[in-house]
Amino acid sequence: MNKLAIMDIGSNSIKMILVDYRGDKSFRIIDELKETVRLGEGMHKNSYLKEDRIQKALQTLTLFKNLCDAVEVDEIIAVATAAVREAANQQKFLDRVYKQTGLEIRVLAGKEEAYYDYKGVVNSFDLDSGLIMDVGGGSVELVLMEDRMVKKSVSLPFGALTITEKFELYDENNRDKDIKKHLHQEFSKLEWLKNLKNIPLIGVGGTIRNIAKIWQRKNNYSLEILHYYNLNAENVNSVYKKVSKKSIEERKEISGLSSKRADIFIGASGLVNYLMDFTGIENLIISGKGIREGLVYDFLLEDKLPVADVLDYSIKNLLHNFDLNEKHAARVNELNKNIFYQLESEFSFAFDEFPDRISRIIKTAALLHDVGTNINYYDHHEHSFYVILNADLYGLTHRELLLAAYISASHRHNKYSLHKYNLNRKSFKDIISRKGNDKELIRKSGIILEISESLDLNRKGLVQRVEVESKVDHILFKVYSSYDLRLEIEDAMEAADGFESLFGKELKFKLLDV
Amino acid sequence: MNKLAIMDIGSNSIKMILVDYRGDKSFRIIDELKETVRLGEGMHKNSYLKEDRIQKALQTLTLFKNLCDAVEVDEIIAVATAAVREAANQQKFLDRVYKQTGLEIRVLAGKEEAYYDYKGVVNSFDLDSGLIMDVGGGSVELVLMEDRMVKKSVSLPFGALTITEKFELYDENNRDKDIKKHLHQEFSKLEWLKNLKNIPLIGVGGTIRNIAKIWQRKNNYSLEILHYYNLNAENVNSVYKKVSKKSIEERKEISGLSSKRADIFIGASGLVNYLMDFTGIENLIISGKGIREGLVYDFLLEDKLPVADVLDYSIKNLLHNFDLNEKHAARVNELNKNIFYQLESEFSFAFDEFPDRISRIIKTAALLHDVGTNINYYDHHEHSFYVILNADLYGLTHRELLLAAYISASHRHNKYSLHKYNLNRKSFKDIISRKGNDKELIRKSGIILEISESLDLNRKGLVQRVEVESKVDHILFKVYSSYDLRLEIEDAMEAADGFESLFGKELKFKLLDV
Repeated sequence: MNKLAIMDIGSNSIKMILVDYRGDKSFRIIDELKETVRLGEGMHKNSYLKEDRIQKALQTLTLFKNLCDAVEVDEIIAVATAAVREAANQQKFLDRVYKQTGLEIRVLAGKEEAYYDYKGVVNSFDLDSGLIMDVGGGSVELVLMEDRMVKKSVSLPFGALTITEKFELYDENNRDKDIKKHLHQEFSKLEWLKNLKNIPLIGVGGTIRNIAKIWQRKNNYSLEILHYYNLNAENVNSVYKKVSKKSIEERKEISGLSSKRADIFIGASGLVNYLMDFTGIENLIISGKGIREGLVYDFLLEDKLPVADVLDYSIKNLLHNFDLNEKHAARVNELNKNIFYQLESEFSFAFDEFPDRISRIIKTAALLHDVGTNINYYDHHEHSFYVILNADLYGLTHRELLLAAYISASHRHNKYSLHKYNLNRKSFKDIISRKGNDKELIRKSGIILEISESLDLNRKGLVQRVEVESKVDHILFKVYSSYDLRLEIEDAMEAADGFESLFGKELKFKLLDV
Repeated sequence: MNKLAIMDIGSNSIKMILVDYRGDKSFRIIDELKETVRLGEGMHKNSYLKEDRIQKALQTLTLFKNLCDAVEVDEIIAVATAAVREAANQQKFLDRVYKQTGLEIRVLAGKEEAYYDYKGVVNSFDLDSGLIMDVGGGSVELVLMEDRMVKKSVSLPFGALTITEKFELYDENNRDKDIKKHLHQEFSKLEWLKNLKNIPLIGVGGTIRNIAKIWQRKNNYSLEILHYYNLNAENVNSVYKKVSKKSIEERKEISGLSSKRADIFIGASGLVNYLMDFTGIENLIISGKGIREGLVYDFLLEDKLPVADVLDYSIKNLLHNFDLNEKHAARVNELNKNIFYQLESEFSFAFDEFPDRISRIIKTAALLHDVGTNINYYDHHEHSFYVILNADLYGLTHRELLLAAYISASHRHNKYSLHKYNLNRKSFKDIISRKGNDKELIRKSGIILEISESLDLNRKGLVQRVEVESKVDHILFKVYSSYDLRLEIEDAMEAADGFESLFGKELKFKLLDV
């Protein structure tokens, strides 16, 4: 296990994440520190970093560097963005940092900053294209992603703070029309921003996450997860309108809005609102990952290409971090997939008509069915539910994530009801249904997963293949193996009662030699 | 990391647990297998193990042994209890097992079985004395524990199955008076069972856990945890009375009762009920740990003594399994304890008047405040709440465990309400209060923990000591260190608003050289 530190010197704060990583490219964040240094303070007057802010930055970076030494970090990547980038006394600042701490700061050009935002996004979403937007205090990064590559990118020289100051948006916003006009003018300088209707906006950074949080709270959204949360243009507009009517003190009371961002939040939400307005983009997807994660991926993935499949990558990451038996997980997944698709005719719906990507859901449930053992072996299916929801899994919508978690939770005894896992008093009824196809998918897939796990009881991969035959009154599982699998089949037969009540047919097994 | 397998060949089932363990004596269960072999079947007619049951046992043990080979187990401990112990064809059975699998089974004498029950119990409870009872099918183990050592022990030659058969308790129980008379007669043969009024009964095994589960369900108990759950004699009697009135089919429908145990459950609950009746013991404490865990501890702890402090041991175990920064945890714990006790006068109650053992609660919260980072760094305080409740922590009552989990969850931003963590739609209101002293303890301890963590921001233990002085309008933290801790104190000052609203006094720091 090695340790990597990423330091990110912004206009408002200096942040550091500490990351454990392995040679196999799996990693986990183990610590985060944030100091509100306001290095960009006063820079609109002249372009110099102020001495007292430099002092504070030096103090903070010394602390961060000491922490790196204390925990024996192997690699430090320290970058600076807007404030340092534009500072007339940049070099002097960098020299002082180096002299005092030994840290070599890399000042990112605007396009580089945008690139690392893209890196964070492309490796944590299964989206081929989108317009990535990172709203900072003094800049906005935009990246047009096509086929998972950067098509265009820019760092605009204004941000939430700039707009706030320019239009004096400290209390109520009376300048809406001017803001619209100004931003439309600015955006229209970029040809490639026109006609992006059919791709989503992917929002990076704390202020955009705040828009989503306000909307979630207002609607009592039952999952407290922001990554991959969706809002449409109307929702964003409604948040912008709402905050526009309030004084700064009133804004601080809005549920979901960080009180530290209340001052610049009209400017921030205005930027998002009018970019969607200008481009005609209908859908905003929230990213929990951005520049710091981008730097981690850039460091870990030497080929510099996006990971081939973000879901596979994040599942593997979790399996490695939790030190689970990956071979068993892979075999159960193979058996499960195989049996599942052979049983498609026993479902009341066709798999390709289901509103979600079923293959990704059942893969997640199968590969991670034992992930809860890390918390406690006993009741580990319940802990798997919790971990699947809360660990960073990428490339599943919230609905898909919940369905996978429920299927995984049903892999033992299949007696667990949809009511059992109502975390935070919430029922997830706004995301998945308690009946109909959702329920059928969860229950039937759960029992198929239970059977699949039984067939690898021996953890040796003794089953060569399974052929499933649907008969009038029973379903026959023909298990091909050159080994004596009586106990595996006996174990699988524990699911017989549940199977019969769900499929309306008896469960039968036949052992066949290969 | 090494692997240990424990196999346990009982009258009804053969079980195996697989355990990862380290040189530092930390361990975790990674798998459990159970096959209902019924090796004791028909033994009441003659004392021979039947051929078809032996075949089944051989098949099961072969599977278990193969699994041990597949996952490269370093040590196998295989024991047999009642059925094999009493079998006339014991040696022949053992020879066949050895020939077919290479496994050397150790047949436990009744007293040895009782001893391992005790080992499982003494290392998972902070109790000095108690009467341990393990109800099996054909035997009951009793151990009188005094000062954490075995004072007396016995294995009685009758169990849940014996009593069920003797009094034909398949359907309704019409023989209650006979059962009482019989059991009182049997128990009265043991002088040392008399006058145990003042110690608890500690119940081991699945049938006793079922008594508790029935009672929990009936009362909508909000925590789904059995270990350290308490029932009084009246509760046990009420369960026994309830099941006594029902046919076997009706019993299968009782919530909390495993349908596989419905057949022998009148006998099982009768045994517990009349042991409490006979001894005058008022309090039954459920143990989730028994003979298999006892064998694990016996293997790991070479000095064969009970662990000095089960809470410390289980916390350490969790920290090791989760690969956390133990030095940081220990330093935060020291700072936290220190500050906490200096602030006692700022609480509205005296610590020794609080109904729980406060020192154990705050120690648990402090040492495990970061345990949730294993699931996800972000929102890790919430995940710490989940892990503290669900990982096996020993030596805290359910109330104490919940208080520790809430304090730990409050160690960041201190804005988390008691309402947030209502897992399973349950509010834990039946266990802790949402107001008064419970709330005060959680909130104030949470913010003290937040401050303590800030003071080890550097992860280097730079604070030598903290002296806390309560003034009329403020509380002064005098931080002694030979280092520049301005950032640590700034970080701690993030808690200032919360501190003031809770303590009604301003938070102030002073840095002093040592």
